Amino acid sequence: MAKRQIMTLTTDFGRRDPYVAVVKGVVLAACPQAQIVDVTHDIPPFDVLAASLVLGQVAPWFPPQTVHVVVVDPGVGTDRHILAGRFGGQAVVFPDNGVITSLAAALPLEELAIVPAARFAGGASRTFHGRDIFAPVAALLLNGGEIPKLGPLPATYKLLDIPAARVEGRTVVGQVVYVDHFGNLVSNISQAQVVEWLGRLDNLVVSLAGRPVGPLEGSYGFVPDGQALAVIDSMGCVEIAVNRGSAAAALGAGFGAEVRVELA
Amino acid sequence: MAKRQIMTLTTDFGRRDPYVAVVKGVVLAACPQAQIVDVTHDIPPFDVLAASLVLGQVAPWFPPQTVHVVVVDPGVGTDRHILAGRFGGQAVVFPDNGVITSLAAALPLEELAIVPAARFAGGASRTFHGRDIFAPVAALLLNGGEIPKLGPLPATYKLLDIPAARVEGRTVVGQVVYVDHFGNLVSNISQAQVVEWLGRLDNLVVSLAGRPVGPLEGSYGFVPDGQALAVIDSMGCVEIAVNRGSAAAALGAGFGAEVRVELA
Amino acid sequence: MAKRQIMTLTTDFGRRDPYVAVVKGVVLAACPQAQIVDVTHDIPPFDVLAASLVLGQVAPWFPPQTVHVVVVDPGVGTDRHILAGRFGGQAVVFPDNGVITSLAAALPLEELAIVPAARFAGGASRTFHGRDIFAPVAALLLNGGEIPKLGPLPATYKLLDIPAARVEGRTVVGQVVYVDHFGNLVSNISQAQVVEWLGRLDNLVVSLAGRPVGPLEGSYGFVPDGQALAVIDSMGCVEIAVNRGSAAAALGAGFGAEVRVELA
Repeated sequence: MAKRQIMTLTTDFGRRDPYVAVVKGVVLAACPQAQIVDVTHDIPPFDVLAASLVLGQVAPWFPPQTVHVVVVDPGVGTDRHILAGRFGGQAVVFPDNGVITSLAAALPLEELAIVPAARFAGGASRTFHGRDIFAPVAALLLNGGEIPKLGPLPATYKLLDIPAARVEGRTVVGQVVYVDHFGNLVSNISQAQVVEWLGRLDNLVVSLAGRPVGPLEGSYGFVPDGQALAVIDSMGCVEIAVNRGSAAAALGAGFGAEVRVELA
Repeated sequence: MAKRQIMTLTTDFGRRDPYVAVVKGVVLAACPQAQIVDVTHDIPPFDVLAASLVLGQVAPWFPPQTVHVVVVDPGVGTDRHILAGRFGGQAVVFPDNGVITSLAAALPLEELAIVPAARFAGGASRTFHGRDIFAPVAALLLNGGEIPKLGPLPATYKLLDIPAARVEGRTVVGQVVYVDHFGNLVSNISQAQVVEWLGRLDNLVVSLAGRPVGPLEGSYGFVPDGQALAVIDSMGCVEIAVNRGSAAAALGAGFGAEVRVELA
Repeated sequence: MAKRQIMTLTTDFGRRDPYVAVVKGVVLAACPQAQIVDVTHDIPPFDVLAASLVLGQVAPWFPPQTVHVVVVDPGVGTDRHILAGRFGGQAVVFPDNGVITSLAAALPLEELAIVPAARFAGGASRTFHGRDIFAPVAALLLNGGEIPKLGPLPATYKLLDIPAARVEGRTVVGQVVYVDHFGNLVSNISQAQVVEWLGRLDNLVVSLAGRPVGPLEGSYGFVPDGQALAVIDSMGCVEIAVNRGSAAAALGAGFGAEVRVELA
């Protein structure tokens, strides 16, 4: 039976231009049996932090040997490197601009190489490396190419400085780091941190930007429609939501808003 | 030759968050040969009626044995059931909130089971059953699992109360039930009802919100650009449109507006 | 090994309605092994020129024998023809409304046929030929059907009148023909034309709507953040951009704005 080869694609290309399909065409021309999954093309233009968080949440759920390609690359055509790495069995092709930060925190680094751009850049443009370098490198990996044979190890690679939650006395202090499509406000406070620092998940009060929201509920539908609540979300983090509504809209809060968890 | 296994995915997740790709990753990890088709991820958040209408129009066009997964699920984490059913050869995994209404009206129910959530919910979150329950159940069905072996028959399941067209004397009275991307206003009056109740498709006048639009035209391009018209649409329903324009914008009408068909 | 059969789909259907998935369902029912790639469904409604430019940029990057389907078809249901053609090894199914213009300029015509609509239109609607004619014709081609056996050669076919760049003395004069998701302003002046008419790519000044932008830079990151620049883009055309910003927004220019290239 033919082996399926899975690739994901995360970009800030949007969806109305030719760019996404061109990348796929180049991959399929070299690896016709590739199965390409769109992660999103709606990363805000040039937003490396948002791309990092999305990639870090998506990649661990894919089968081993998946090739993840991330083209959020405002430095295209400059001397920034393109890297290919393997983290916990997942291969990733990405610009060395910190976009790997969340994934590198979640999965162990196993292999890493600098992509030799000149080898792929015969007639390469200087503005669309997604097509001219990322896509052929992805096809090479999908076709069984090995990362260590691709190029030299980088001396170091860039990581973003993502804010971390901390404990102050008996209060866990963090902030909103992601606002999703529903308007849910995802914080950087994990369930594990709450348990470690406060010793419990019940009898707590979560507050947002200085205003109490309530205890940790079981899920959205545990409070009346339109009411705000706190919950442990699907990634294991404290999230502020509104049942059948948008917390971002209803509470007027967004990226960076302070989140606190303390004993009731 | 490898059997292809087709799955569709309908959600209100939007397209910029990790959620859609995470569901796909879980399915592909268990069933690498799955072919996953996005129906839409732009169902308005929590809009079970819109999801029902889209699913009901899409599913019948897919080959038998397709697995349709619908995650428009504001009750996630509460005691609402997740059901798996077979309707006219199409398998569907859906929350028991009425989202199956249109499909159940179009295709005959053949099998139905309550998904035993606890069996899939080892470490399941209470906020993302798309990932933790719907996706593994879909993979199980794609891999040949049988619905009757999945869980018990529900005593009953929820259907939405969708407004139906009616006849008053020699007038068919209905309403706009869907407004599409082009601004076309789709009514709940079918061609079959017009023929049954009025005995003809010509020499009719269609009106919208009390204002006459005109007779049933052959297609959009049968009237000048910018002019309103009525037409039997691709689902066999009376639709109000504007040639190369938006009826919703031009006529200021939307969901719920009254549509009447009567003799000219 | 099973042969993979690749199809692309370009429409103005948007992404929230059932239409895109219905087309895919019809194709997959007839050709379950098809691999369907979305080009875009966000062509502005009825914008045949935009669809032409996107198709012309995408198709050449796909492997030979790919079947490209374009449904931007405001004349659906009228007497306009649906054509099937082969251009440089790429098969295309398209309405005869000029949408083939850019592709026909890039790749040589090899085969062309009028689709016999009546053969596919047993119960065909008059408003959704994407489902009733384009999809079954695409499936027929994916399954090995030959274009010349499909129907008669058209006497002629429609091409759009796309504005061309020209040289005036030592100045190349063109205009913005495409504005992408990033706000990049793509002109109809090619690198080849600049070299042919001015004999060089350095020591030039590019201006937009009468205001000088600067020389041709290597890539976006060669100027400070927020600064405008000119660059040869990935399609080989002169493009006006803003580093990590939107030229359309920052410079207040769009489709049709004059672009000039002259000696510095």
